[in-house]
Amino acid sequence: MLTPPSEQVRQQAYERLAALAKPTGALGRLEDAAAWLAACQGVSPPRPPSAVRAVVLAGDHGVTAVGDGVSAYPREVTAAMVRAFVAGVAGANVLARQHQVALRVVDLAVDADLGDLAGQLGDVKVRRSSGAIDRTDALTAAETATALAAGAELAAEEVAAGADLLVLGDMGIGNTTPAAALVAATFGVDAAQVVGRGTGVDDVRLAAKTEVVARALRRAGDRVTDPVQRLAALGSADLAAGVGFLRAAARAGVPVLLDGIVPVAELAVAEDLEPGVAAWCLAGHRSTEPAQRLALDRLGLEPLLDLGLRLGEGTGALTALPLLRSAALLLGEMALLSDLVP
Amino acid sequence: MLTPPSEQVRQQAYERLAALAKPTGALGRLEDAAAWLAACQGVSPPRPPSAVRAVVLAGDHGVTAVGDGVSAYPREVTAAMVRAFVAGVAGANVLARQHQVALRVVDLAVDADLGDLAGQLGDVKVRRSSGAIDRTDALTAAETATALAAGAELAAEEVAAGADLLVLGDMGIGNTTPAAALVAATFGVDAAQVVGRGTGVDDVRLAAKTEVVARALRRAGDRVTDPVQRLAALGSADLAAGVGFLRAAARAGVPVLLDGIVPVAELAVAEDLEPGVAAWCLAGHRSTEPAQRLALDRLGLEPLLDLGLRLGEGTGALTALPLLRSAALLLGEMALLSDLVP
Repeated sequence: MLTPPSEQVRQQAYERLAALAKPTGALGRLEDAAAWLAACQGVSPPRPPSAVRAVVLAGDHGVTAVGDGVSAYPREVTAAMVRAFVAGVAGANVLARQHQVALRVVDLAVDADLGDLAGQLGDVKVRRSSGAIDRTDALTAAETATALAAGAELAAEEVAAGADLLVLGDMGIGNTTPAAALVAATFGVDAAQVVGRGTGVDDVRLAAKTEVVARALRRAGDRVTDPVQRLAALGSADLAAGVGFLRAAARAGVPVLLDGIVPVAELAVAEDLEPGVAAWCLAGHRSTEPAQRLALDRLGLEPLLDLGLRLGEGTGALTALPLLRSAALLLGEMALLSDLVP
Repeated sequence: MLTPPSEQVRQQAYERLAALAKPTGALGRLEDAAAWLAACQGVSPPRPPSAVRAVVLAGDHGVTAVGDGVSAYPREVTAAMVRAFVAGVAGANVLARQHQVALRVVDLAVDADLGDLAGQLGDVKVRRSSGAIDRTDALTAAETATALAAGAELAAEEVAAGADLLVLGDMGIGNTTPAAALVAATFGVDAAQVVGRGTGVDDVRLAAKTEVVARALRRAGDRVTDPVQRLAALGSADLAAGVGFLRAAARAGVPVLLDGIVPVAELAVAEDLEPGVAAWCLAGHRSTEPAQRLALDRLGLEPLLDLGLRLGEGTGALTALPLLRSAALLLGEMALLSDLVP
């Protein structure tokens, strides 16, 4: 079991919230966010996160080559978007600049030779694309271990760079399919309960995607009880890296602001691997994917935002970041009732 | 009829949104916000609002002296909170500093002598407290005209100071009662459909508050068909000033980010007074007050946030401000698909 955020400091934060010059509970959801941040930092009032660092994990997925396809976009878009990140023109880049967040994209399993960008993308590539999970394992056992370790190393690098809050993003055509499969396997539910439209598939592809997840779950069978084997059978290199990233962040005691379905699926597996990871995470944005809702419910998390974003990349988390900063600032800077009424 | 925001530019914004390197609609609600801002500015992509100015209208309300009371707090809190604003320690001050917003509080009808703060509070006081609307009119016809003009003048001052976005806030113990009465009268619904718990009244006071609104509506009778007479009968000096403020902002073509129940009630009356004001407004935050939900539905507005805030002061709008800025930045800075796939 991981060291949890400080319950004592969380209580201190709620006590200060109750003493502020405002009606009880009048800051709504920002009160819980402020108390969570205080508990993670071990100090109340908490410092607004000022050294926020975001990592976007990129990879391709074998399922994009299945039958009718599971995505509205061809696989080539993943590599093109990685180049857009490097050029600073992806949605997450724009939000990161707005909120003074250091953002990097790393290539875990993009199905393209991005060697010309090696200096920028890190040296963590596990393979080109992960396996098509309805027909084969996504990863070998060795690849799974490599990806988990790569994610942990990425988190360690960001922590060493001084991060006081981490954001985990994803980029990869087809990645909501393995994410849905991981959520279904983690919580023991059917494919139909977790599969959504991703970036916008039509009814035909939605049915195909559901069938892919159902086949993958049947194929994997009981092995998926073990979280590491679950990643090998149903995940991908980028998703396994995300699991390693979240576990390492929690072990280091650095809080994480979560994005949509992919990071939340990663958290579902990470929490199974090492209970206590979720306590270090705050949900930023509700995804339109049913798997995210299910996983958040099971993990006891409720997102700050519900704006209908479905871009991935960490954009939901980055959009929520100023609200978390507001929560910290309000707790620290509002008058106490005792200041106003002597 | 007011000049509306440019439908042509709104269309241009949606066309650019469709051309960005992202799935269709993947920015969710931020797409509509970006297009609204573009239409208001008459340019796509729009500039992120950088000269945002917030005005908090303060006043007391006769209904706080009624029977069991309608508020969880005594009237004296209004003056104490005005002093907190001047000292920079109210919640809205904290958020305004975070987001580089110029914020001022003005005294329309606080039931206290705040003469020592005259230099800071402006010279717009209409009276000490407005009338108890279940027994008497809130304002005379002359006072109503004075308050409407004062609000318009306040907006004009902020526009003259260079505002590219306005935020309207409220401070006043008991102010959700006249706000609910105005919404009920504007849309012709019963007291029970609009009255909520404000800053946190118990069941006894909720019943008393509902009865106050019902009595006020019966007492006012058919006069309330006219929006100005409605303000005189059921409103207050601060609420009438808010109506004048919103109308003047819309006439000047400066967009407004709305807060909770009080500014939305003011908008309901302003839209009735001069159709087209609502088109210049974006809803920032969903209030816990049923009157706000009803008014927003009727006005065709949907808030960006639903965080359970119930502090007033403009805090819901200020919390939403970075999202509106994100919307503008994403529309302006994300790559076009044609940039990525030549």
